[in-house]
Amino acid sequence: MKAEIIAVGTELLLGQIVNTNAQFIAQECANNGIHVHYQTVVGDNPERIRAAVEIARGRADVILFTGGLGPTQDDLTKDVLAGMLGRELKVHEPSMDKIRELFSSRGAHMVESNIRQAHWIEGSDPLENETGLAVGNALTADGTHYVLLPGPPKEMKPMFLHQALPWLRGLLGEAVPLHSKMLKFAGIGESDLENRLIDLIEAQTDPTIAPYAKEGEVSIRVTTRAGSKEEAEEKMAAVVAEIYSRLGKHIYADEDIPIETAIVRIMSGKGLTLAMAESCTGGLLGDLITANPGSADAFRGGIISYSNEFKHKLLNVPQEFLEGDGCPGAVSEPTAAAMAEGIRSFADSDYALSITGVAGPGPSEGKPEGLVYIGLAQRGRETVVERLQLAGNRESVKLKAAKRALFLLWSALVAK
Amino acid sequence: MKAEIIAVGTELLLGQIVNTNAQFIAQECANNGIHVHYQTVVGDNPERIRAAVEIARGRADVILFTGGLGPTQDDLTKDVLAGMLGRELKVHEPSMDKIRELFSSRGAHMVESNIRQAHWIEGSDPLENETGLAVGNALTADGTHYVLLPGPPKEMKPMFLHQALPWLRGLLGEAVPLHSKMLKFAGIGESDLENRLIDLIEAQTDPTIAPYAKEGEVSIRVTTRAGSKEEAEEKMAAVVAEIYSRLGKHIYADEDIPIETAIVRIMSGKGLTLAMAESCTGGLLGDLITANPGSADAFRGGIISYSNEFKHKLLNVPQEFLEGDGCPGAVSEPTAAAMAEGIRSFADSDYALSITGVAGPGPSEGKPEGLVYIGLAQRGRETVVERLQLAGNRESVKLKAAKRALFLLWSALVAK
Repeated sequence: MKAEIIAVGTELLLGQIVNTNAQFIAQECANNGIHVHYQTVVGDNPERIRAAVEIARGRADVILFTGGLGPTQDDLTKDVLAGMLGRELKVHEPSMDKIRELFSSRGAHMVESNIRQAHWIEGSDPLENETGLAVGNALTADGTHYVLLPGPPKEMKPMFLHQALPWLRGLLGEAVPLHSKMLKFAGIGESDLENRLIDLIEAQTDPTIAPYAKEGEVSIRVTTRAGSKEEAEEKMAAVVAEIYSRLGKHIYADEDIPIETAIVRIMSGKGLTLAMAESCTGGLLGDLITANPGSADAFRGGIISYSNEFKHKLLNVPQEFLEGDGCPGAVSEPTAAAMAEGIRSFADSDYALSITGVAGPGPSEGKPEGLVYIGLAQRGRETVVERLQLAGNRESVKLKAAKRALFLLWSALVAK
Repeated sequence: MKAEIIAVGTELLLGQIVNTNAQFIAQECANNGIHVHYQTVVGDNPERIRAAVEIARGRADVILFTGGLGPTQDDLTKDVLAGMLGRELKVHEPSMDKIRELFSSRGAHMVESNIRQAHWIEGSDPLENETGLAVGNALTADGTHYVLLPGPPKEMKPMFLHQALPWLRGLLGEAVPLHSKMLKFAGIGESDLENRLIDLIEAQTDPTIAPYAKEGEVSIRVTTRAGSKEEAEEKMAAVVAEIYSRLGKHIYADEDIPIETAIVRIMSGKGLTLAMAESCTGGLLGDLITANPGSADAFRGGIISYSNEFKHKLLNVPQEFLEGDGCPGAVSEPTAAAMAEGIRSFADSDYALSITGVAGPGPSEGKPEGLVYIGLAQRGRETVVERLQLAGNRESVKLKAAKRALFLLWSALVAK
């Protein structure tokens, strides 16, 4: 099945945002045996959207739209497609109820334009929006399949995975489905990972082995075609076992979750508790942990010790570590250790993480940009401190430092 | 001048990489009065590249290619275009010399395929590659302009800025360039904003007015054509003044920065200090503030008070607010006020923010998902608390709560 992705939005044409939606959809299509031959971006302009659809239906079996389902006059995807297909736009009542409920729960006044988000092309299958208001659509007309997804990634992704993909799989019919297993790595870089598996990657036929990297995360996807999940597991077992035997101490999950989710699951499961003291990451570590529902069971709280006063008064970091000639300074091994121990002791938690470093740009108090110390204090065990020299801009240094600290904690949690 | 960007590469179609090149080129075009009407992605397949070029030259004056200039058999852009235009590919000798020198300086053996990187379409202008080996091309044929850029961003960007852009500016000749002003809003939703400006938006001709929204941010871009920045400012002045007169108390910047950057600038400029106490946002507020270089001047630190113990012991929230029959509870107006006052008093800062709420999914301690209280304590002024009922998933509730708290602080900072 040949596919084309059409992203609709003038903000993409003006380069105000990056088309990450096209990447996500393309990757998922590739994993599901749908061949994307073209991606197109077009602005919020009815004639040009129409022209793009004309071209796409001449060369693709399925057209995947993203964007243009919102409430404003610029959101035109449904209007244009309905017009081209000679179908009416109707109000999808369950979606309309959801919009009304939301506005009434907020005590806010619903404006007329919000109705547009409940529009639905006559005769299509509505695709529920789990995380937003605009309903999606899927339909087949004159042999072409159309899938309409919203533009915001947090709405588009769940709609694609939970609604559009099953609908598309229905079209694929008898084909032997793809199964894959995602192995998630921490504490190892992309090229290092690839080098340690290069013989497997180069010799791959079935199952296939593909490395993926995004900021702060590295993954391997093992994929095969099989009639059942059990058969797929069996076909993948040998190569998965080989990867574990080489790099098991870096694999924190065999599903697509971030390391903080793995940590919260382990800690909640065992009734363990966590606290943290962050300097250069400024709250990012806490933000990552608390992104997980249920994190309140494990997470007691944290201190963002951006000033020495916070480090000393709240974390009991000795004044002589922080001030005076020849003192180790705020960014140092003893300070990282004292921060972790200070917050663990206050929170009486089983584990505590600390991070202190120079996020940049430029050096600070004589320490180079990217120098970071991470500490782990543990009930009844010795405190561990690691020194990192990280590359990248401020945002990147913060994220890498936080992810590395999480890897230190995860390693302690799974150690025998 | 109408433009189309064609990114060539199967890795884009498979979603292995994100098309950041299209964003970069689109943004630069917009800034230089070149109107990108379409972006296309096509794989390393000669027939499909040819088909994409046929379509593009029917709808664009200039086609900007990126990718497919490398040494491998999959790098086809020059070959396909030369074939379509009936021109020969020749070796560009200065580029060839550079390739030879590089290999000899490394003591490496140059393979035949490296010659491909020095290929050059007969009669085109070569575009020097400052950071790599593949030479670019720019040419005009049958009224269409073609610019061929490499795929790796670190090669493409300098070639675009230093070689292609001057070449394109030469084509634009007398054309009057575009100027635009970005107005950034907080504390107001996308549809509300649009409704309050709908008459302006619908009546727009020159300058144009376009609303944009991304998670937690709403913006308006006002754009006009003018010979100089001063002339543009003058043409935009009336409509900008009208927008300010209607919604000025929501406009935190007239450039594309997030509200936390505006806050850090104001506070650093005035020597004001900030601290914070976060519960449901879990560190996100601190993370946003500390994303800004120089935030250490203003930001003293924060408490992530995820447990009642942290709220009571570190923030002095009275025990009777948190426990016992009929107590207001952790998610309540008095607790939010006490948190803000507690951290302000400890940090002795000029301002302090607090956030306490139910991020979800589901209710907590009898309070509904999305209920959030934000507090602002101020030196010598009364503490303010706002009650919010937010929609969306956990991540979205956290972000909206943090952005709303930042708006509360910004409003206090700019109040007379």
